[in-house]
Amino acid sequence: MKKKVVLAFSGGLDTSFCAMYLSKDLGYDVYTAIANTGGFDEEELKTIEEKAYRLGAKEHVTLDVTQEYYDKSIKYMIYGNVLRNGTYPISVSSERIFQAIAIANYAKEINADAIAHGSTGAGNDQIRFDLTFDVLAPNIEIITPTRDMVLTREYEINYLKDHGYEADFVKMEYSINKGLWGTSIGGKETLQSDQTLPEEAYPSQITKKEPEELTLTFTEGEISAVNGKEIHDKVLAINTIEKIANQFGIGRDMHIGDTIIGIKGRVGFEAAAPILIINAHKMLEKHTLTKWQLYWKDQVGTWYGMFLHEAQYLEPVMRDIEAMLTSSQKNVNGTVKIILRPYSFTLVGVDSKFDLVKTDFGEYGEVQKGWTAEDAKGFTKILSTPLRVYYTNQKKNGKEI
Amino acid sequence: MKKKVVLAFSGGLDTSFCAMYLSKDLGYDVYTAIANTGGFDEEELKTIEEKAYRLGAKEHVTLDVTQEYYDKSIKYMIYGNVLRNGTYPISVSSERIFQAIAIANYAKEINADAIAHGSTGAGNDQIRFDLTFDVLAPNIEIITPTRDMVLTREYEINYLKDHGYEADFVKMEYSINKGLWGTSIGGKETLQSDQTLPEEAYPSQITKKEPEELTLTFTEGEISAVNGKEIHDKVLAINTIEKIANQFGIGRDMHIGDTIIGIKGRVGFEAAAPILIINAHKMLEKHTLTKWQLYWKDQVGTWYGMFLHEAQYLEPVMRDIEAMLTSSQKNVNGTVKIILRPYSFTLVGVDSKFDLVKTDFGEYGEVQKGWTAEDAKGFTKILSTPLRVYYTNQKKNGKEI
Amino acid sequence: MKKKVVLAFSGGLDTSFCAMYLSKDLGYDVYTAIANTGGFDEEELKTIEEKAYRLGAKEHVTLDVTQEYYDKSIKYMIYGNVLRNGTYPISVSSERIFQAIAIANYAKEINADAIAHGSTGAGNDQIRFDLTFDVLAPNIEIITPTRDMVLTREYEINYLKDHGYEADFVKMEYSINKGLWGTSIGGKETLQSDQTLPEEAYPSQITKKEPEELTLTFTEGEISAVNGKEIHDKVLAINTIEKIANQFGIGRDMHIGDTIIGIKGRVGFEAAAPILIINAHKMLEKHTLTKWQLYWKDQVGTWYGMFLHEAQYLEPVMRDIEAMLTSSQKNVNGTVKIILRPYSFTLVGVDSKFDLVKTDFGEYGEVQKGWTAEDAKGFTKILSTPLRVYYTNQKKNGKEI
Amino acid sequence: MKKKVVLAFSGGLDTSFCAMYLSKDLGYDVYTAIANTGGFDEEELKTIEEKAYRLGAKEHVTLDVTQEYYDKSIKYMIYGNVLRNGTYPISVSSERIFQAIAIANYAKEINADAIAHGSTGAGNDQIRFDLTFDVLAPNIEIITPTRDMVLTREYEINYLKDHGYEADFVKMEYSINKGLWGTSIGGKETLQSDQTLPEEAYPSQITKKEPEELTLTFTEGEISAVNGKEIHDKVLAINTIEKIANQFGIGRDMHIGDTIIGIKGRVGFEAAAPILIINAHKMLEKHTLTKWQLYWKDQVGTWYGMFLHEAQYLEPVMRDIEAMLTSSQKNVNGTVKIILRPYSFTLVGVDSKFDLVKTDFGEYGEVQKGWTAEDAKGFTKILSTPLRVYYTNQKKNGKEI
Repeated sequence: MKKKVVLAFSGGLDTSFCAMYLSKDLGYDVYTAIANTGGFDEEELKTIEEKAYRLGAKEHVTLDVTQEYYDKSIKYMIYGNVLRNGTYPISVSSERIFQAIAIANYAKEINADAIAHGSTGAGNDQIRFDLTFDVLAPNIEIITPTRDMVLTREYEINYLKDHGYEADFVKMEYSINKGLWGTSIGGKETLQSDQTLPEEAYPSQITKKEPEELTLTFTEGEISAVNGKEIHDKVLAINTIEKIANQFGIGRDMHIGDTIIGIKGRVGFEAAAPILIINAHKMLEKHTLTKWQLYWKDQVGTWYGMFLHEAQYLEPVMRDIEAMLTSSQKNVNGTVKIILRPYSFTLVGVDSKFDLVKTDFGEYGEVQKGWTAEDAKGFTKILSTPLRVYYTNQKKNGKEI
Repeated sequence: MKKKVVLAFSGGLDTSFCAMYLSKDLGYDVYTAIANTGGFDEEELKTIEEKAYRLGAKEHVTLDVTQEYYDKSIKYMIYGNVLRNGTYPISVSSERIFQAIAIANYAKEINADAIAHGSTGAGNDQIRFDLTFDVLAPNIEIITPTRDMVLTREYEINYLKDHGYEADFVKMEYSINKGLWGTSIGGKETLQSDQTLPEEAYPSQITKKEPEELTLTFTEGEISAVNGKEIHDKVLAINTIEKIANQFGIGRDMHIGDTIIGIKGRVGFEAAAPILIINAHKMLEKHTLTKWQLYWKDQVGTWYGMFLHEAQYLEPVMRDIEAMLTSSQKNVNGTVKIILRPYSFTLVGVDSKFDLVKTDFGEYGEVQKGWTAEDAKGFTKILSTPLRVYYTNQKKNGKEI
Repeated sequence: MKKKVVLAFSGGLDTSFCAMYLSKDLGYDVYTAIANTGGFDEEELKTIEEKAYRLGAKEHVTLDVTQEYYDKSIKYMIYGNVLRNGTYPISVSSERIFQAIAIANYAKEINADAIAHGSTGAGNDQIRFDLTFDVLAPNIEIITPTRDMVLTREYEINYLKDHGYEADFVKMEYSINKGLWGTSIGGKETLQSDQTLPEEAYPSQITKKEPEELTLTFTEGEISAVNGKEIHDKVLAINTIEKIANQFGIGRDMHIGDTIIGIKGRVGFEAAAPILIINAHKMLEKHTLTKWQLYWKDQVGTWYGMFLHEAQYLEPVMRDIEAMLTSSQKNVNGTVKIILRPYSFTLVGVDSKFDLVKTDFGEYGEVQKGWTAEDAKGFTKILSTPLRVYYTNQKKNGKEI
Repeated sequence: MKKKVVLAFSGGLDTSFCAMYLSKDLGYDVYTAIANTGGFDEEELKTIEEKAYRLGAKEHVTLDVTQEYYDKSIKYMIYGNVLRNGTYPISVSSERIFQAIAIANYAKEINADAIAHGSTGAGNDQIRFDLTFDVLAPNIEIITPTRDMVLTREYEINYLKDHGYEADFVKMEYSINKGLWGTSIGGKETLQSDQTLPEEAYPSQITKKEPEELTLTFTEGEISAVNGKEIHDKVLAINTIEKIANQFGIGRDMHIGDTIIGIKGRVGFEAAAPILIINAHKMLEKHTLTKWQLYWKDQVGTWYGMFLHEAQYLEPVMRDIEAMLTSSQKNVNGTVKIILRPYSFTLVGVDSKFDLVKTDFGEYGEVQKGWTAEDAKGFTKILSTPLRVYYTNQKKNGKEI
């Protein structure tokens, strides 16, 4: 009986080569699997399935983990206002983990002997796949033909042709990865340090020139309505916002960051919905959370983003951080008004029952009701005590301020 | 002999009242002082001086601490990429401290019996002034007539008129504070949670409609050239950038934050130069610092901003943080290219000899030269060890992943 | 009808004076209340009750909040291994908060017009009481006769005598505060910087000279057995451990710290059970938690202790931290063996099903099973990449390492 | 001409085998080098040299980096009060880095083709050596025969005998590593989780039974006198303290920690001087630094220790942290009195001109001079504002406290 390999399959050149190679050269029964985290529509998935069978797959499955991806990752990225290095909503890296988990579970389910993926040895994805497989399926072998053999495009195309498979493998100018939480764009300018992507490199083009208003409503930190219309399906809510906002070219930027493998890299992205949702959420939190909740959310949110990016989603500390983030969201309720403009947006303000800015305690700089001038003086006297002690001592020791 | 009071004087209604009141009602010799941190030009300073003498000041001084303000505060805010709550360059609050220090030192110099300021009991400035005076001049009394007496504008105007001083005290719709590191705008919309400032509330109006390129050059973290032209005077450099960028309406936003006195407040601001400088500086750092330098700078920079905002500039920990930030800047050299647009800007890229992105070690996702596929596999095997240990143990204890 | 005041009453001189003064001079109906967090036994509570009535209390209540104190505070201090400044188990300060909460709730329950307490203006307790009352009962007046009037002992004793109340108010050499989580000892040596408490100042004396073994068992981070005997009542467990260990003089030390009111202070303490429990718990966590769980627990635990100490228990961020700490404890199960000695103890080791040290993956420094020499080399090659990139660039720029 | 290899040589079985093997089997000219960081005395070094030449070394050098090790590592560990996981002074791991640096520099100096070390594939040291060599000498090959070949003791002994080298390679019960900053002890009990080292496993035996007093004086954070006697040579000072204190069995403990290679491990240690110096230094800091200096030193000190332990000494962030730590030490001057006892010690107190506890501002809990009761009330009123705002809003939203 032939051994079974599960191949993480996308229908691209590398994984097409892998499918054929695993079957013909290595003699496996190839089970192709695509884990969809929101980047593929029905038609694309059908085309991928057809390709898989044409390449000789014994079986092909589509694993839809979009909802799981939202529930276990995007939700917490929103809670934590996660923008890697202050910029990047971790569009692609977080998806890979949930794809890897789905693939690993499928492989265990069908008692596969091996798992294969098409990542090269140059990027982060190989680590995300290998590490997740190592942890969840430690007894299943990992096979990575494209990483190990270092083949040219030409070689792969010819190999496939020789085995009777032809397809239109167009070399794209940019490598584009689309997902629920944004699209990454690599190539040309991103390989240099001094250039940015040209307008035409972005999948979404700017079609709106005039400002438009958008409102986002949050319930316990999660998006619950768009422009006043309730949307219970969070995935749909994100897609709805994306469609509205990417016409303005919002959420485009360049991520410059440290890879898991230690070098630095640049990648362009467009992520209109993530950028709007996170910024609106963050503003709502400024109104509804205390200073120290904001401080600590920032601390753990930054770490959460780093670890998610670096394939450490399964680290138990991530569950602890999720518990903290969840606890912090119970008052993050309200609606945020935004003005969309070409290339940018303005956060107008919030309307929330839990707003701690609008209170009966006095408005900043205007009227005070919660304390007196004498209270403020007493406060300052005590607040200054450590410094008065310190500088008095400094002076006594002959040290000028 | 009359007792001496130093009055922090701006020429506005509150401090005009204080000058008269301290002299006429309290019987002091009034020494008015204005500490300029870059917000006033020559003419304005002359007008203020004239007003002081008309109000009966025994002596008036202008204390120019703009350079000191840059050297001891702005420089470190740039090093630390300080944006309070991710947004606000701490435009006004940091100035107050250096104004207070200058006033305190002047009071000690002339052996003043008291220091007076015109802050009300509703905001942060009273704390900044009181605390700094308490610490630097603990034996000098602090007098705050407007805080203590809670007077109406009408009362103050009439009092001044009765004492022979008339001036055009126009009630402004917005309270505007201009300084070297930005302008804050309070009033009307900022007193609500759900509105933003209208276009006309901003001191600088948008006059440029077409994109323009700007380059900023940094040397050891400090701005050293603008559009390729060297500028040694850092204050001039900031003003130059401000003039170019505020025609695009860049750097406008709303700060929502926790005040020193515990309530939350909102304030609008425009700060084109600070926002561009900090963002460009931060991008250059992503290219020239290591991942952990970025991480720790972020940690201490956030704290530095909070403490600066909250009148804790004199805390010794601030000196320790400054030492760390200074140490981190030695490789932050290079030029950042920016495209300016109405309301927004794009960071194009950097050109730096210290760029760690462009190296001989392989480009991200493209070619690897610094390691092999086998290295990457070994790396992942070791990197996954803690998780393999953990989940193996979990499984042994009957806990599913 | 007379107005009602609730007096936090301990039977000592200050609160005895307050009871009489509030009733006789201020004309209140005095409701005395003692909130017990484990520091008083039945007999002591009875004596206090008798005193209250002799002093003319309209009503006296004992509020037992020992269990609540454990559930809402001690439990999390154990989870977080909270030792303020690395030393002090926050023995007294955390109790005050729960006493204040109980008093405030009682005052609201009986519709009191005022709450009184006997704290002076010199310490932290006034802040703990005032702040908690301000927050939980903002409409009830706070009265603090001893703080406001600054009276001598003699005056208070005479006042009480004049009103027909005599008691043996012995001036103690040390001010001692006993609670479930340790005893604080202030006075004489603690008022200097260069001395420590003499043997006789400690309530518990060393009676054991020979080493003895003790085992503590934890279930999800909470103590569940002592010397192999299950104890479900956590308060009983703490008392049991305390009795065993304080015969060895374990857990004595001096806390040097910053007070809420800004000055630094010293206070001695003995806290055998807290010190043993926390150290044993921490060792068990080193075996059962991952590196990053330990790291983050340490971060938030330190903050939790600081805020608890500084009267900020009611800050919502504390609930978020509690959620994180709780999440981290699910594997903290096992037994820790300790050797007790006069003045010290040795943590021998742990026995836990969740031990991550004893695994099938190789023992440190001995045999490796989870990876090969080649894996280790690959790991190092990748791990060193950022530094190789950095120093290669440094060299290129003429900077020697 | 033969190729040159530098071998990190200790005279033990593994490196003796390497010396012979590199020369006889691999045909290298072997340059043996021992980098002493304080663990070896003159005689031991001489014996090691003799062994090297007997094993056919072309040249043998002793690189004394003890002073450098103090200046670049121990000093900062004292500043940062570095105890890994709250316990371990990082006795051995920090030494390895400085040994590796010295070896790498020597190899570059003599234009070596390769560097060899005797680390196995099971521990941290291989990473420390490999990584440091990779970074400092990227073009020099690394050879690790014992790691690659996985040989038995017997095989190595026989190989050496066959090549004419005999020595008394006694198999020790414990693997002991002695250095300036402590001695680590591995084997037997440390390989289990539930046992500790027996008395006789410790190199230093307890000979003192009666308490003794010791004073340590610090100048800007560094030890400058012992028992009142000035010692300018810091290495001598550490050795002096070690000799006094290890007679009491002070500083013995078990480190349980995460290794660089991901598994957890246990190792015993005795480190009397480090434990005393760090604890005394920390107490002095509690008296001389502000609350926030202590807080931030703790943050960066913990990280510094982790990175030092994990071979990341060369990370540039370490230089930034060192700058911060250095800045914090300028007031850490004074003398700490300690009572030494068998197995334990008591920190008695400090005498320092920079003591912030003894001030004119009032003593904690006794007399207040720096503020009034009214100040304290005002302080609390403002301090409680955020919570009053929060809970008022909660109540308005029907949420009970």
